[in-house]
Amino acid sequence: MASPVITLTTDFGVGSPYVAVMKGVILSLSPSATLVDLTHQVPPQDIRYAAMVLADATRWFPPATVHVAVVDPDVGTERSIIVARIGPQTYVAPDNGLLSRLTRAAPASLIVELTDPAYWRPHLSSTFHGRDIMAPVAARLADGIDPLLLGPRRDNLMQLDWPEPIVSQGAITGTVLTIDSFGNLITNIPAELLVPFARGSVVTCGGRDVRGIARTYADRTMGQITALVGSNGMLEIAVVNGSARQTLNVAAGAEVQVRAVGET
Amino acid sequence: MASPVITLTTDFGVGSPYVAVMKGVILSLSPSATLVDLTHQVPPQDIRYAAMVLADATRWFPPATVHVAVVDPDVGTERSIIVARIGPQTYVAPDNGLLSRLTRAAPASLIVELTDPAYWRPHLSSTFHGRDIMAPVAARLADGIDPLLLGPRRDNLMQLDWPEPIVSQGAITGTVLTIDSFGNLITNIPAELLVPFARGSVVTCGGRDVRGIARTYADRTMGQITALVGSNGMLEIAVVNGSARQTLNVAAGAEVQVRAVGET
Amino acid sequence: MASPVITLTTDFGVGSPYVAVMKGVILSLSPSATLVDLTHQVPPQDIRYAAMVLADATRWFPPATVHVAVVDPDVGTERSIIVARIGPQTYVAPDNGLLSRLTRAAPASLIVELTDPAYWRPHLSSTFHGRDIMAPVAARLADGIDPLLLGPRRDNLMQLDWPEPIVSQGAITGTVLTIDSFGNLITNIPAELLVPFARGSVVTCGGRDVRGIARTYADRTMGQITALVGSNGMLEIAVVNGSARQTLNVAAGAEVQVRAVGET
Repeated sequence: MASPVITLTTDFGVGSPYVAVMKGVILSLSPSATLVDLTHQVPPQDIRYAAMVLADATRWFPPATVHVAVVDPDVGTERSIIVARIGPQTYVAPDNGLLSRLTRAAPASLIVELTDPAYWRPHLSSTFHGRDIMAPVAARLADGIDPLLLGPRRDNLMQLDWPEPIVSQGAITGTVLTIDSFGNLITNIPAELLVPFARGSVVTCGGRDVRGIARTYADRTMGQITALVGSNGMLEIAVVNGSARQTLNVAAGAEVQVRAVGET
Repeated sequence: MASPVITLTTDFGVGSPYVAVMKGVILSLSPSATLVDLTHQVPPQDIRYAAMVLADATRWFPPATVHVAVVDPDVGTERSIIVARIGPQTYVAPDNGLLSRLTRAAPASLIVELTDPAYWRPHLSSTFHGRDIMAPVAARLADGIDPLLLGPRRDNLMQLDWPEPIVSQGAITGTVLTIDSFGNLITNIPAELLVPFARGSVVTCGGRDVRGIARTYADRTMGQITALVGSNGMLEIAVVNGSARQTLNVAAGAEVQVRAVGET
Repeated sequence: MASPVITLTTDFGVGSPYVAVMKGVILSLSPSATLVDLTHQVPPQDIRYAAMVLADATRWFPPATVHVAVVDPDVGTERSIIVARIGPQTYVAPDNGLLSRLTRAAPASLIVELTDPAYWRPHLSSTFHGRDIMAPVAARLADGIDPLLLGPRRDNLMQLDWPEPIVSQGAITGTVLTIDSFGNLITNIPAELLVPFARGSVVTCGGRDVRGIARTYADRTMGQITALVGSNGMLEIAVVNGSARQTLNVAAGAEVQVRAVGET
């Protein structure tokens, strides 16, 4: 039988030995687990960024993969830690909005609050529940434990507000939701909304106009600002061989407009 | 049977293909090994930093894990490379103090100096013993070779000085031993020494006073200097959402004082 | 049977979730694959740098390892993606010169152009062929598919120019081919050309002279510019505990001269 897959998403930073500690705890309980780093470069305590990464990346994993997300600014307070089944995947995370981008596409079919310390490490620290609670629970889930043993069912997950694009006659007004490691601006405007603009459009962000929506990076020349549909199916603004974040001087939350223009 | 686990700790830097080369050599000899990166972000040639990481992180791994540490400023000189059994774990490292923090807690039960080239790669470079000696030996240890085949027994490992906290009437004087990737200052003062200070204390470092020892990061507000017990059980000084290293302008070796004060 | 090994080399940057997405796609098709990151720190779109890394690092892996390289500035254009057998290893990459350093040592014994979408992901994006074509093909190759099912044979791979060192009476004129993550300058001068210079030599680069070729880093003192034979068997210029790139202010392509001098 194939090894269970467990992914890890944290804001510990690359090279943090705390990531390795979580892996050691997992392998101590589930020696045949296949461990994959989703990313440890979540900006510190940026729940919204991590929620985007989880929504975009985890669906590419095999069914029954266990995804552990430790972006946990409230560790040590009364926030709860939950296990959630969303589609064919299982998630272990603090209930602070980390799964709120995922549940827009498909609601959780099961939510359990982790309350039974029998499945945790024996001695609980107040600062590292990733190691003491989430890692051991992920190992047991990968090995097939019934989540209902871990604690009581819950009805809801904490939600964050995810702005939706506004479509009007001849224009879409959207938002930069997150910025990837290349400095590309990832918006909340999905490709299907762009179909009516195929004959000609201008994309505006940070006070700069970009004419047309390119099919690929190779359609543009170095240093040019480009609008294109990224690999997650959303409109992106990129600078070929550069950083759109720097060139346009914008942050997550910035407004993005798409307007139809006649072909000239 | 579960795959043997091998961890790697180096100062090669993240993204170094030399790390991958060591993994290729290991997998060529031990194809079922599970490889885990402990960290490759050890500051270049910082043996003391790596020794702290090894002491804190390796004990979370399954028994019989093989931990390879390549922080080796003296590669190509007459320094020896050793295999050591410390507790239930096995280590492969140059004998330059890398294991000296580990052996404070438990002495090595077996030390072998690697001298038999039959277990190394056939052609030895003068600059990369991680690849040519340590990786192949780690693979064979993971596969269960008797360490005594690898060379002669040794009685001692090289030791480094690890300053101990000094406890006097109403005060502890300790030292910043290392600084983590968040800029948190990790001291040599264990939590158990802090019990008598529970009623009220001031922690002083870098000329700044911090009142009280917080239970978690969430007890303090953004940007505030905080003293707390970290996940390794030692007193840490942190800046919430910031870097204590920068805010206090101190380096490893700085003095830390804890004084009792009356509750007011 | 041992798991097939698949390595990944990209310019996505460390912490990119796109790397994890490729791993998810691979593990969905080949659940027992062992995944190894070669490096994701290739400078953006630097095909030559990646070609050097592939030539140096992939030969250390077990026979039949599948190496996937996604440095793909022309994604979405008509460039082809190929599978190549070179020595005992298998490569999946865009045909843009990524394998041209490897094929100098040994020509490809088989080249297949990927044209049959039956072996790709069902929906093809225009920006991420690493996920949609290369990852699924790598998974199938690791599981033993006959490469000839994937598309038609090709005779040639795209070649890049790799300058050769020029040897004259008493001197070698070479080139800095690439620069590693330590800032060490890696040249195209192999160790065997240096044998006649053993009695005394001066290495010149960036207007600076370095006397002698050191056996190891430990032969020199901190901050000193050093010429030595690196672990890949090529002459390197390094600054002990520093960056030769910064100290000498040179880039890839810079000239390097070795001249014989009498011992004095």
